[in-house]
This record gives sequence, C-alpha cells and structure tokens, in this order.
Amino acid sequence: MSKKRVAVLVSGGGTNLQKIIDAAEDGRIKSGELAVVVSTSKKAFALERAKKHGIKTEVIARSEYKTDEECDARLISILEENKINLVVLAGYLRIITPKVIKLYENRIINVHPSLIPSFCGDGFYGLRVHEAALSYGVKVTGATVHFVNEVTDGGAVILQKAVEVKEGDTPETLQRRVMEEAEWLLLPRAVELFCSGRITLDGRHVTIRQEE
Amino acid sequence: MSKKRVAVLVSGGGTNLQKIIDAAEDGRIKSGELAVVVSTSKKAFALERAKKHGIKTEVIARSEYKTDEECDARLISILEENKINLVVLAGYLRIITPKVIKLYENRIINVHPSLIPSFCGDGFYGLRVHEAALSYGVKVTGATVHFVNEVTDGGAVILQKAVEVKEGDTPETLQRRVMEEAEWLLLPRAVELFCSGRITLDGRHVTIRQEE
Repeated sequence: MSKKRVAVLVSGGGTNLQKIIDAAEDGRIKSGELAVVVSTSKKAFALERAKKHGIKTEVIARSEYKTDEECDARLISILEENKINLVVLAGYLRIITPKVIKLYENRIINVHPSLIPSFCGDGFYGLRVHEAALSYGVKVTGATVHFVNEVTDGGAVILQKAVEVKEGDTPETLQRRVMEEAEWLLLPRAVELFCSGRITLDGRHVTIRQEE
Repeated sequence: MSKKRVAVLVSGGGTNLQKIIDAAEDGRIKSGELAVVVSTSKKAFALERAKKHGIKTEVIARSEYKTDEECDARLISILEENKINLVVLAGYLRIITPKVIKLYENRIINVHPSLIPSFCGDGFYGLRVHEAALSYGVKVTGATVHFVNEVTDGGAVILQKAVEVKEGDTPETLQRRVMEEAEWLLLPRAVELFCSGRITLDGRHVTIRQEE
C-alpha cells in the first residue's frame, strides 16, 4: 500500500517536526511520508531540520499577501501540488482559514499542550497554556492531539496523555515536561494511526483500531 | 499529637466514606479520626457503613427545615459539638451555604470525578460528569480533590489523578473506573495529608510537604 503524504506546518524551532522525522526514520511512522514542510517564516529553524533530512520546504510569509484568504490560497495550492493526505499543525502560529479546514476536513490535526477542554481556545497557545495551568493550580496537565475544525482547539480528540505538574514548576519547566512526556509521543503516534487508516471519526468520537 | 477530628458528609451509598474508613483502619490515615458522619437522608447506606464501624451518625433532612440557612445552622452546630477540624464532602448532594464555607474556610474538601477545570461547576455531578466527558470525546479524565469555596468546584486543587477513557465506555463504566483508579485513592490520601499538617495553601496554590 502506498504511503500517505503528510504536510507539516510550522512556525518555529520545529521540535515536534523533528519527532515526526525521527519516527519516520526509525519506523514508528511507516504508513506515511513527509512530503513537505510549510513554514510561516523563512527563518524558522524547522526548515533546517527538514532540509537536513531531504524534505521539501515551502515558506508562506503572511506579509507577502494582502489577506488571510490569499495567503491560504497559496497554502491550498501547495497542499494540492503535493497531493497531501494529512496536514499536521506542529507549532503553526497562524489560524487556518475556514476554506482550508473545509477542503481538508478531518485531515488536519493539531497538538495542543493541555488536556482539552482545559486551558484551550483563543489566546491559549505556547507558554500561555502552561501559565494558565500553573495559575489555576492544577496538579495534572498533559497534551492533546485533535482534529482541527472551525473552533479553536474544538475538534474531536484523537489522543491525550496526562503529565504531572511538579512543585516549583515554572511555565518553562512545565512546557518542557509536557513536550517530552506527551507531545513528542502523541504526535508521531497520531500520524501513524491516521496514515494506517486506524482512526474512525463518528461525530466528536474518535475510535482507534488497535494493531493486530 | 492528638488526631484531627474529621466529619464526612454524605448523601448516598457511601463508597468514598468506606474508603476513608478502610484507610483509617489500615493505618493510611493515622493523623485523623472519623468523628461523625452526616447524611442528608436517613436512608443513605453510608449510615450503615458508619454504624458498623462505631462512628457517630447524624441526619439533616432538608425537608425538616424552612430554609437552606436553617438547615446549615444545624450542620454548624453538629460540626461545633464534635470539634471538627476537617469536613469531607463525599458524595454530598446539597450545596453548602456561604456561612459554613466561611466558618470552615480551607477546612472543607470535596472530591470531584473529573480533572478540574474540565467538566465541573453547576450541573456537573455524579453520572452527568462522565456523560459530559464521553460526549466531548476526551481520552483522559480523572478525579480531583479540592478545597471548597463559594464557587462550585472552584476551590484550590489539592490532588488530581488521571484515568484513561476506554473504547466502549458508558457513563457507568467510566464512573466506576474513575472511582477505583482515582477517587478512592485520592480522598483518603488528602485526608491524611490535611490531618498531618502537610498541606499549605497560598492563594490557589497547594503545596504538599512530602513525608520525611
């Protein structure tokens, strides 16, 4: 069976991208291939990671377009040119327009650094998520991989993993632990589950078929 | 050092009460003693559990009082008569009035069957919590022990534990798993932590001093 073609959309350092690359190289991802990495900035270190592994890269700088729609028209053409089956948002700091969401319905996934529905939605990104968790005083947080729909962080949940909050945690130490113990495990796993056709979506409910 | 005196407030079967009794008998709770069990109904099976272990019981039926305040005046007199240091809500289906909350500030704890702030607040109790979690489609839920303040499920978090949602779960199977894997462990532990003076509260932040 041919591999599913995966686009990873990034804005920054690309640590989540690196974990997907690693999983593709060591065989944890075997049903998908990284077809293209799309960055919002030509300075994103994620692009270096992609190039180092021979993965095609594209840059879509918002400043070069008049509107979000024009900007995402370019994104759509890149996804179509590359015959993309799965779009992975891996620290992508632009909002995806409804047109893209509609075109790639149930084929765009995102990783969010909390146990959704806690600490998610508009304004909750990056360190802010962990600041909110610490400010609330939770003892358990985690990460979520979910389908992307028109509601920020509102799509169906695919995978979640809990992570302990420790005394003395700062937003930075908590962010790092959530990455190490949850995001970096969940995202490659979700990519392989999707590409191997083991994810079934029924309304908001994701069923995962276990490997035989 | 004398043991702290604990009141457990119940409305139903009293499974959480039973776990506190068990922990007191097997030594996991050694800094507190069960001074009184207060039930909203004389029919609550929790009362049988208390009596079997020689624990004093009281019933406060709302129907015998004109107002919530009169009803809670009786509660206050029971707590005072019994020199209570810690009030544990263990499936207590009445709202505690602000007067009681004020009098016993930072001395009332509750167990809630989700990872607060998910699936909590007004209307989220009992099976409804698990129905909401399944309806949302989360893959991880859990339980929380927290201080009780004037906001429903809004007080500072003391302990949390994650529990996996499994495919095919019904609200009933999920409720049972959350009890077994989280509530029944967290509540006795929180009682002992409180009674041994190892919980420090700073704003919304609970710090737990580990045992030497």
